[in-house]
Amino acid sequence: MAKSVLTPQAADFPRWYQDVVAKAEMADNGPVRGTMVIRPYGYSIWERMQREMDDRIKAAGAKNAYFPLFIPESYLTREAEHVEGFSPELAVVTHAGGKDLEEPVVVRPTSETVIGEFMAKWINSYRDLPLLLNQWANVVRWELRPRVFLRTSEFLWQEGHTAHATKKDAAEYAARIHRDAYEDFMVNILAMPVIRGRKTKAERFAGAINTLALEAMMRDGKALQMGTSHELGQNFANAFGIKYLSAEGQQETCWTASWGTSTRMIGGLIMTHGDDNGLRIPPPLAPIQALVMVVKDGDGVSEAARTLTDELLAAGVRAELDDRTDTAFGRRAVDAELKGIPIRIEVGPRDIAEGKVTLARRIAGGKEPVALGEATALVQRALDDDHQALYDEALAFRDAKTVDVTTIDEAREAAQTGFARIPWATLGVEGEKKLAEAAITVRCLVRPDGEIPESDDEEGAIAVVARAY
Amino acid sequence: MAKSVLTPQAADFPRWYQDVVAKAEMADNGPVRGTMVIRPYGYSIWERMQREMDDRIKAAGAKNAYFPLFIPESYLTREAEHVEGFSPELAVVTHAGGKDLEEPVVVRPTSETVIGEFMAKWINSYRDLPLLLNQWANVVRWELRPRVFLRTSEFLWQEGHTAHATKKDAAEYAARIHRDAYEDFMVNILAMPVIRGRKTKAERFAGAINTLALEAMMRDGKALQMGTSHELGQNFANAFGIKYLSAEGQQETCWTASWGTSTRMIGGLIMTHGDDNGLRIPPPLAPIQALVMVVKDGDGVSEAARTLTDELLAAGVRAELDDRTDTAFGRRAVDAELKGIPIRIEVGPRDIAEGKVTLARRIAGGKEPVALGEATALVQRALDDDHQALYDEALAFRDAKTVDVTTIDEAREAAQTGFARIPWATLGVEGEKKLAEAAITVRCLVRPDGEIPESDDEEGAIAVVARAY
Repeated sequence: MAKSVLTPQAADFPRWYQDVVAKAEMADNGPVRGTMVIRPYGYSIWERMQREMDDRIKAAGAKNAYFPLFIPESYLTREAEHVEGFSPELAVVTHAGGKDLEEPVVVRPTSETVIGEFMAKWINSYRDLPLLLNQWANVVRWELRPRVFLRTSEFLWQEGHTAHATKKDAAEYAARIHRDAYEDFMVNILAMPVIRGRKTKAERFAGAINTLALEAMMRDGKALQMGTSHELGQNFANAFGIKYLSAEGQQETCWTASWGTSTRMIGGLIMTHGDDNGLRIPPPLAPIQALVMVVKDGDGVSEAARTLTDELLAAGVRAELDDRTDTAFGRRAVDAELKGIPIRIEVGPRDIAEGKVTLARRIAGGKEPVALGEATALVQRALDDDHQALYDEALAFRDAKTVDVTTIDEAREAAQTGFARIPWATLGVEGEKKLAEAAITVRCLVRPDGEIPESDDEEGAIAVVARAY
Repeated sequence: MAKSVLTPQAADFPRWYQDVVAKAEMADNGPVRGTMVIRPYGYSIWERMQREMDDRIKAAGAKNAYFPLFIPESYLTREAEHVEGFSPELAVVTHAGGKDLEEPVVVRPTSETVIGEFMAKWINSYRDLPLLLNQWANVVRWELRPRVFLRTSEFLWQEGHTAHATKKDAAEYAARIHRDAYEDFMVNILAMPVIRGRKTKAERFAGAINTLALEAMMRDGKALQMGTSHELGQNFANAFGIKYLSAEGQQETCWTASWGTSTRMIGGLIMTHGDDNGLRIPPPLAPIQALVMVVKDGDGVSEAARTLTDELLAAGVRAELDDRTDTAFGRRAVDAELKGIPIRIEVGPRDIAEGKVTLARRIAGGKEPVALGEATALVQRALDDDHQALYDEALAFRDAKTVDVTTIDEAREAAQTGFARIPWATLGVEGEKKLAEAAITVRCLVRPDGEIPESDDEEGAIAVVARAY
């Protein structure tokens, strides 16, 4: 491959990220500070992520609905911690329809409040529970230090909101989404290893009694929170009057939960699998899995390339023909690498004369001539292997950069390059504050066996600490 | 069926509409004036509409992208007609992140301006054309007289935005989307007859040189605009500098087009097919096509119902089992009628003993016992017939309420109950103004053969006039 068009990761990781987002045509910055434009290639990846996540959410029994963008300011103030957490980030509409509004409305930063209001209307009896809702929407949180996909003033997400009869039901459902929808999606679609744990009190969602998180390691050793599920206790149910008549005829207060994943995951995908030549997109997610490239036209090359593309499509491979021979082949090949297309099949006159094509693999690396008649089967096998290879590579990278430590100083040191694991009994709330001074946070608490502790104080709980996005 | 729970259409059509939207659990009014909550049943219909429309848009070569919700106020003022048209409806954010903003930002009422800005960045040469973009998003237009789905301060839609090398290319693409995506979707999925025509100058989109519309007749004889495609000429290309280098090496200005359909179509669907018992959902759109209802449990009824449901699902029918026998059967049946589920299959102990079930058809009407073994095949046939029946009924209704007239007075008279067709040469701009005093508008201009005139002044053009939503 020719000289890279990207800043190398080792030289300047944030610059590499900016470069690859721009050169792979994933996104642009929007004209209003902190907003982004998701370009067609980036959006086609998001669409596939949405479809896969939506299938999992529906399989867990939740139904999609849509709630308004605008929320009365007074709703937010009903849950004290919630408004305190979100106030600094709110965008407020004060003028509409040619007039100043009597009550300003906020642009939703999240929808617990407005959905709480309607849960209270829709739930009457225990027969209406659980109420399992999900929404795909844009939300706004004004960002002082925006970074495309990772931290933007407007982002796209899904937010699930559920109401249950008991604390146990709410906790189980939040954990179920976390495992069966979120973790399953991240592993099997994004090819990303994730740590499932619980947030410390300091890191919880504003208004939650428990927050579960999925944390991934980026290639600069920093952590990225990929998704969260919150047990909201009865905080929002009390604030909005979400009650039900039990089978025994008693008025009871519901227990609610909420959970979300966003376009931020695209940033995580880029920073987990990308390399100095560009993106590497896991095959289940790739809009184009195999690009059939006409190197040079003539001698039946275009016809052979088209036939092969059709054969791949018929075999269920998302294949596309690139016959733009008015653009230099080298430039097209670099572009395909930048975009992380898993497989390129280069079709040229000399190869075709010998009944061959060249298979170039973005993930496994390397180029090799293969018989035209075997190309489709080889592509299918390569796509299967590539997904596992990406996952294994990311897992090995994370393991190599994760250290078990026993003191706060060691934790601070280790977090400069990766994750540190330290007993929560050693760290504690005070140690957490000390690390915060060095911009290091407790990403989550886990059990020694990798499962999620029942409480912050559970004996043996380990804190995973890191610098984070 | 028991006494209807809805206000009859003939008694009070707007009240019937409100009733059916509420009772079928389609939507609620949001807490901020003019906003709406789309409930899970309504949203499941919208999801299916999105999927079908999206497939057609992609088949026409457009790609999805996402542009920001917030637009700098200064963008809107760059196209004079555009800002004049939208100013009274804008919602403005003046305060964000705890501070007053230096430049207020508007919440997008439509995205021609911000997309124009990025088209100018992305288009360099004729090779980049046509640029065919589409976006699924929420938009905000402050409404003084809101009505759920039909006219809401926030609504969901798709907006296509395309840039072309020539006026002819732009016109042809706008017409192609109008016919191959929009009309095809409305006829084959919504089962709605639509009139394809061009808007008069008075009714055009703010900033367009030509607007094509699709107009449908509601069951109260009023018109509903279901979708529009606009030729924007070089108005936005000039305002935002959308230029390209031609094959001959000349700098040229692009020609742009835009086109949109929205959640308003759900209102159109309801008011086209609904009757005094509730909704009637065309089978291609119905989230549940066949509801298998356990009338009363016992004697293997539940097992038989479950087996039949599985058989229907295996045959590709969207079937659902209703075994909520703790709710009265009558109430469940009324609910299924309200929701417009095309087919109910009632399974009771006496029927099952005779190897039968009862087929109740929402669209064709009537109930009949059928052999259990034949039920699946009969359901499949019924679903096919139902779609055509709904379309035919709506077309016959529209034809019966459409009158050819030769004077403005006759047009005014006929528009009290339906559509009037009057030669544009007779009506003209002056006649259009007179009708406007009686709240009657020219919905569109058509040729005698039903095709779209090339210009407002084309000889023989007929104006279709009506009261409208």
